[in-house]
Amino acid sequence: MTRIDDQMAFLAEAEKLRQILRATPIGDASRQENSGEHSWHIALYALILGEHAPDGVQIDRVIRMLLIHDIVEIDAGDVPIYAQTAEGQQETEAAEQRAAERIFGLLPDDQARDLIALWQEFEAAETPDAIFAKSLDRFQPPNLNLASGGGSWKTYNVTYDVLDQRVGRPVRRGAPALWDWIAPKIRAVLAP
Amino acid sequence: MTRIDDQMAFLAEAEKLRQILRATPIGDASRQENSGEHSWHIALYALILGEHAPDGVQIDRVIRMLLIHDIVEIDAGDVPIYAQTAEGQQETEAAEQRAAERIFGLLPDDQARDLIALWQEFEAAETPDAIFAKSLDRFQPPNLNLASGGGSWKTYNVTYDVLDQRVGRPVRRGAPALWDWIAPKIRAVLAP
Repeated sequence: MTRIDDQMAFLAEAEKLRQILRATPIGDASRQENSGEHSWHIALYALILGEHAPDGVQIDRVIRMLLIHDIVEIDAGDVPIYAQTAEGQQETEAAEQRAAERIFGLLPDDQARDLIALWQEFEAAETPDAIFAKSLDRFQPPNLNLASGGGSWKTYNVTYDVLDQRVGRPVRRGAPALWDWIAPKIRAVLAP
Repeated sequence: MTRIDDQMAFLAEAEKLRQILRATPIGDASRQENSGEHSWHIALYALILGEHAPDGVQIDRVIRMLLIHDIVEIDAGDVPIYAQTAEGQQETEAAEQRAAERIFGLLPDDQARDLIALWQEFEAAETPDAIFAKSLDRFQPPNLNLASGGGSWKTYNVTYDVLDQRVGRPVRRGAPALWDWIAPKIRAVLAP
């Protein structure tokens, strides 16, 4: 096995991410978003909205993080943010860790190590790059829900308070200007 | 209008890229690939296969290029590589140029200028970054066609000679190691 064999085995496996459907519909509400195209869209968010990140955030690292952040869902599935429970959370984390080891493990060892570390950094959301990446991952779905007339907010009967906790808090933490921009639009639809 | 208003108008428009279907099927042949998830997948190719690029290629620039390279298709559509004709080519280029001005033009002026320039650099395929980006854009579909049992090669009755001209040449130019890896696999299916 050459390095290219291993790299292409990983890319063929990663390709399945587009078969994972998310709770959020696409903008015209014609179907659900899949996690592959979601990863593209939020990488584009990072490219375009980088000026609203705190000083010191490296946008190219954020883009790399966002390109790989959901690959674990190929094995672990997507858990919609409004369906998460405290008990379920631990199980999900364990399943995602196993998925990261299996899927990134297809790569040559050095790349597997690097990408597992990058994914864990994203998940932990403690470094400036990961905090900003996480805020974009939370900021994109409300925009799709607003465009599509409610989307996953309707599916899960989401109130403004629940949204503020699960979405507002991480977006404010990583990208306060983006929260200030969207909060009035959300309030107009989900009365506080 | 604030900068964020303009940036979000662009991101909402760009989102439509996932409604553009390509000639290539996804790996399990269950449906056609769309241009949004294609953009994600080849950005991931760049992240993983960067070591096979010629010296001096900046992978993070290549990733940025690949994230935006197909956005013009929202207006101009996707022209499958095996359906291109010399006459059609000029029309497509004009339509894509208009699309770039309209869609990137939604952004604040400085960003619109930067992204139109980045897209034109990709299209021209003259700089090392663009040559490598183009080679990945040509290298990914054969992998999907091999996985899905023929894909767009069947649709267009593609011979090895035609493939070598339209795919082999640009892949060899930007990433010879990747061509050496895939050429025998293609030859086993499309006899020269």
